[in-house]
Amino acid sequence: MAQKKVKIVEKRNEVINGLRAFGTNIYNQLDQGVFPTINMPSRSTENINYDPTLRQYILGEKSVSRSARNIRHIKPFTQLAWAAMFSNELTSQRKTSTLRDVYYSAQAYEMTFTDQQESNNIITDLETLTGFAREDFNIFPEERSAIFGDLTIGYTVPGYEGKTLNLTSHPDGVLIGPALTSAEFINTKADKVIAIEKGALFTRFIEENVHNKHKSLLISCGGQAPRQTRSFIRRLHDELGLPVYILTDGDPWGMHIAQVIISGSANAAHLRDLNTPDAVWSGVWASDIIEYKLPTDPLDEMDIKRLYELQKDPRYQNDPLWQREIKLFLKIRRKAEQEAFSRYGLTYIVDEYLPTKLKDTK
Amino acid sequence: MAQKKVKIVEKRNEVINGLRAFGTNIYNQLDQGVFPTINMPSRSTENINYDPTLRQYILGEKSVSRSARNIRHIKPFTQLAWAAMFSNELTSQRKTSTLRDVYYSAQAYEMTFTDQQESNNIITDLETLTGFAREDFNIFPEERSAIFGDLTIGYTVPGYEGKTLNLTSHPDGVLIGPALTSAEFINTKADKVIAIEKGALFTRFIEENVHNKHKSLLISCGGQAPRQTRSFIRRLHDELGLPVYILTDGDPWGMHIAQVIISGSANAAHLRDLNTPDAVWSGVWASDIIEYKLPTDPLDEMDIKRLYELQKDPRYQNDPLWQREIKLFLKIRRKAEQEAFSRYGLTYIVDEYLPTKLKDTK
Repeated sequence: MAQKKVKIVEKRNEVINGLRAFGTNIYNQLDQGVFPTINMPSRSTENINYDPTLRQYILGEKSVSRSARNIRHIKPFTQLAWAAMFSNELTSQRKTSTLRDVYYSAQAYEMTFTDQQESNNIITDLETLTGFAREDFNIFPEERSAIFGDLTIGYTVPGYEGKTLNLTSHPDGVLIGPALTSAEFINTKADKVIAIEKGALFTRFIEENVHNKHKSLLISCGGQAPRQTRSFIRRLHDELGLPVYILTDGDPWGMHIAQVIISGSANAAHLRDLNTPDAVWSGVWASDIIEYKLPTDPLDEMDIKRLYELQKDPRYQNDPLWQREIKLFLKIRRKAEQEAFSRYGLTYIVDEYLPTKLKDTK
Repeated sequence: MAQKKVKIVEKRNEVINGLRAFGTNIYNQLDQGVFPTINMPSRSTENINYDPTLRQYILGEKSVSRSARNIRHIKPFTQLAWAAMFSNELTSQRKTSTLRDVYYSAQAYEMTFTDQQESNNIITDLETLTGFAREDFNIFPEERSAIFGDLTIGYTVPGYEGKTLNLTSHPDGVLIGPALTSAEFINTKADKVIAIEKGALFTRFIEENVHNKHKSLLISCGGQAPRQTRSFIRRLHDELGLPVYILTDGDPWGMHIAQVIISGSANAAHLRDLNTPDAVWSGVWASDIIEYKLPTDPLDEMDIKRLYELQKDPRYQNDPLWQREIKLFLKIRRKAEQEAFSRYGLTYIVDEYLPTKLKDTK
């Protein structure tokens, strides 16, 4: 798997090259004595389309331009150039940061952002321009999810080069942060990935030895999986060829946590490789609620409204499973959490439910 | 440090003995032909007092009794006996669980709880009766915080006995879960603990080598630190003799995150050892906002209301620092986040602010 190491280093180089290309483009225009202009795809709603082949949202043909000649463009143009410079510093120096840090860091350069939203938008512009996610520029979210299982990784972060870790080393799980997502994959005995909505079930799975019994890498999403975790799941799928199974609560919110891992979000239409189209939602389905006679709570108004929204969402069109389960939720008007299986004893979900679902959704 | 291993194993035995004592007590009463009755301290508001010597909330002299003779008591009495039995199973079999699991598991025994709140209350009763926290019965919360630093731990969980881990092994940090909190401490080069409100600053500290430069164990609280994390901080303080410094956002909410680590909460008045009275709040203080000329946001109505509440809270009475800072917040009517230091560059907080505050709050 030596080519994988190259891949991580290559990607960092590509990111830095992308930022340099942006700078060079501005520089060359200035050199030619013209007001610099940049073009990028428009992210307006009417330019976001679902692509059934790619199985994710993408941006259409419309583009926007920003010119230093236009007085209304000068501020965002300068902010964008600053953001590229700052991202280049982060990436070259291998320092991580957050959207909040970016906002405050600007003040060190006397670069003004009116508010957090304005600086977030500029970072999204930079993503759109370069095609790289902000995590590739070392701008990470606050949320952290976790992983456990027999995968040995090799670090590429400063101070840890050459060091490896097997991800079974700590039985509570290790955080999925910058060091993990920038690591190479050295080897694994796992033949699948199981992504789990809740931390408590993740812990149960570790205790019940699911990683050995089902040769799996376990991921705790911590609710909606952060982008870096979704992109890490994609890497596990692509680089190691592992199928991905997703287990969530049996309600529209759990369903959508699975869908975002599979099909991504409209907000990330300008990016690729954050989603895993081949991943499958293994449960808890509405039909599981019936089949396993799970203890339930009634759907509330918000749940029902959400189900009607999902029914029309293009991401829910391409697989009859989704439509069938949405209809069933609306029919039974009940929902069930993952913990509901404890009704049959704490290990039932591992001993009975999981093997059945892994087989059925293979 | 061989005695520490004994301590962990001893505690588990004490927990099991506590549960058995509860069962034996009921059994003996039945054996004597009387309706079994149990007594425990009352948790009603008027029985919760702040103890300035212990520097935490405690329960007063009032007690409540539950008798199987009283028709209104039979349901909670039976629920409590079931909860003790279930906790005994968890502890003996070393399986972990959550409050949500407890609620659903009851159904496997045809034990009915009207709702989650009812089963949560019964678990709190069991805590009150035995004096052990639910985490000691292996009932853990969903939230997880994280740790990083030069501490070698020895696991006591099944499958990991005899294995050790140095907590610098994974530079994103490892989760503080059941396996970590039940581990023995083998050795450490650290001479202090730094508990940090936010995950992003935790990552920054690791990157900037704070664990080496300041010989520290770093803890990411993830907002309000979960109870198991607060109890783990107490162990680091008591067993390793490490002073504890807490860094939060400069606002009433951050202030209170520090206070709960130091003085605990009224909800846990029936328990001991969840708080670390000698821990100190090192910042971000209102006076830091002024001294470091930090970028700020105005306090909103909620913030101000909260400050007036804290001003009257007994936990804020015993140290003039708290009162001074509350007054200053109310005077300047501004707040600042930890990230605000990025205004002076990403490493300023580590290079300048941290060393100063560690010295000043020693």
